[in-house]
Amino acid sequence: MSLRQNESVTPGTSTNTVFLDRLARARATMDERGVDALLVSVGSDLPYLTGYEAMPLERLTMLVVPRDGDATLVIPRLEAPRVVEQPGAFRIHPWNETDDPVAIVASLVGTPAVAAVGDTMWARFLVELLGHWPSGATQYVRSTHVMNALRMRKDDAEIAALAAAGAAADRVAAELHAGAIPLAGRTEAQVSADISARLLAEGHDVVNFAIVAAGENAASPHHHPGSRVIRENEIVLCDFGGTMAGYCSDITRCVYLGTPPADVAEAYAVLHEAQAAGVAAGVVGAACQDVDRASRRVITDAGWGEYFIHRTGHGIGMEAHEDPYMVEGNDLPIESGHAFSVEPGIYVAGKWGMRLEDIVVASADGPLSMNHADHALVTL
Amino acid sequence: MSLRQNESVTPGTSTNTVFLDRLARARATMDERGVDALLVSVGSDLPYLTGYEAMPLERLTMLVVPRDGDATLVIPRLEAPRVVEQPGAFRIHPWNETDDPVAIVASLVGTPAVAAVGDTMWARFLVELLGHWPSGATQYVRSTHVMNALRMRKDDAEIAALAAAGAAADRVAAELHAGAIPLAGRTEAQVSADISARLLAEGHDVVNFAIVAAGENAASPHHHPGSRVIRENEIVLCDFGGTMAGYCSDITRCVYLGTPPADVAEAYAVLHEAQAAGVAAGVVGAACQDVDRASRRVITDAGWGEYFIHRTGHGIGMEAHEDPYMVEGNDLPIESGHAFSVEPGIYVAGKWGMRLEDIVVASADGPLSMNHADHALVTL
Repeated sequence: MSLRQNESVTPGTSTNTVFLDRLARARATMDERGVDALLVSVGSDLPYLTGYEAMPLERLTMLVVPRDGDATLVIPRLEAPRVVEQPGAFRIHPWNETDDPVAIVASLVGTPAVAAVGDTMWARFLVELLGHWPSGATQYVRSTHVMNALRMRKDDAEIAALAAAGAAADRVAAELHAGAIPLAGRTEAQVSADISARLLAEGHDVVNFAIVAAGENAASPHHHPGSRVIRENEIVLCDFGGTMAGYCSDITRCVYLGTPPADVAEAYAVLHEAQAAGVAAGVVGAACQDVDRASRRVITDAGWGEYFIHRTGHGIGMEAHEDPYMVEGNDLPIESGHAFSVEPGIYVAGKWGMRLEDIVVASADGPLSMNHADHALVTL
Repeated sequence: MSLRQNESVTPGTSTNTVFLDRLARARATMDERGVDALLVSVGSDLPYLTGYEAMPLERLTMLVVPRDGDATLVIPRLEAPRVVEQPGAFRIHPWNETDDPVAIVASLVGTPAVAAVGDTMWARFLVELLGHWPSGATQYVRSTHVMNALRMRKDDAEIAALAAAGAAADRVAAELHAGAIPLAGRTEAQVSADISARLLAEGHDVVNFAIVAAGENAASPHHHPGSRVIRENEIVLCDFGGTMAGYCSDITRCVYLGTPPADVAEAYAVLHEAQAAGVAAGVVGAACQDVDRASRRVITDAGWGEYFIHRTGHGIGMEAHEDPYMVEGNDLPIESGHAFSVEPGIYVAGKWGMRLEDIVVASADGPLSMNHADHALVTL
């Protein structure tokens, strides 16, 4: 488990100011959008607002933010020692083992006309909340409705954290490229475990995923590394990332064991160009879908369009996947501080697959890449 | 990520029969309890029913089981290659990147009068579902309403899996007791990483948690291992577990670096007796709360009652915490195959804490312990 405590946060420090400021901006958005209560539980909204990450357990932890009035962190009594109370930001309401925490939440605010609930909150708690506030009385919206504008725009400290996580992932990619991670003769699962250990050794606190897909398995974008042994003369797709000091890395590189055949080499050249085009399109003021279109156009024009079967990217920050998404239909304008992946792929079922991915942050100076590992199809 | 594929499941095998049987029993319960649609997403209900574990991502995967009619697995197209379709059990409905998966789910069944939704499904999908089926038209209940009776009663294969995971955790506890895991002079975080590595080396696929709490930190039951250096003459509480072949381990042992002072030794003797009393109370036909009462009575009678600040146990299986809970107020009768922890604790804030935990499975022959590591306060 990657569970952060807000132990480093003490009243009066600059960190505390960060949380007070974020809460104030969340309330301003609630006001603007007519949201009466914001309810966040497991997931990233809670540490973003308070520095405290809830344990993903059946015992409810929930920050209740009424539009007016004090914010309250409803928390199991045995987890309360993990939290540093922050005067002015929120108060703590511990509940006992035989209490009903959802009833406590409902009692803290009158029936709200509009309630925003955290995306990754467990549905069981919303089911129980519906017993107090039926959807006829309360309109439920996603917390992204309140939090997105804040969360998407990364500040300098957040960008520095993304850059540090990206650099750590780059070091593992460099080891892959240098042949320091043995491939041929090992199973995908063994290589995945090796990459995971290296992500931790390079400073990540937790590994979020380490996809290793060899040959025809690389045609499944979310392949689960298994007992398949990696052989000579095939492609190996590695897509890995973790969380470091609260922010995520995510990188994909492919290597080829031997000399790539003509179709693979040709497709990779197209992929390389498509990825660069997507990054270049990630400028302030462009729409998110423009990044997708830029990458897709290169691949489609080269005749591989039907083999690019997913969107081009996802936002990233405290979560490995978050808004904004680089997908057709998303006309949200890219702003300075938006952080996202650019990761086109080409997948030929039964034969091979390939993907190339960097994390990019939009800025007034153009797209800033958080990854600098070699973009070529390195041969080993 | 620990993501299982159901690749080993092929039509006609006994495994497939297991899933068909579980689905049939789920439907029978739906019929009995008047549930029109069962909707399960991330969490354990899905692999329990299909062998497939959904990726915990913003792209919705959901098994839709109408009371009558075919079950459908709504899944992102790029994850569809991970699933082995099982004729007779469910069909696959892949969705494309620009589709609305919640609208697809809603279209698969007419507005249900009663819908059961998975506990750990992301709330965002229930928020979106409320747009199709408001809570005035549909009564939402937790999927446990349908699944609990099935999930709680572990069959022989599940008990064997719990025993194997327990034995693996026991081997790590034995290393702790033997002094093979260095403690004094290392940080809690370092010891936690060491224990995690050993859980994996002993066969776990993933580590769910490895709490290491020294001295006064042990008084916080869910302490997050940090930079605190472990010293001589203090207690070290270690509570760790992982998932092995789909089933969880969970064990707590304490060691003392030196000779325990009188209060610690006295409290531990009480704790040891309380834990044994809780295990002995876990018999078929007793109420879950009887296990809690049995442990609590020993601690209270010895004068430490105010320091035992949590319930005595939780169910365990595919999830680290699941029904049934061993807590005051739960009068559910224990049945053969129920698996749960028995883990009383004594916590003196600012000084020390201790907990002793085994996993137990109720059977016609009495409580079967999945853990056999030494129950004493081993001194090192």
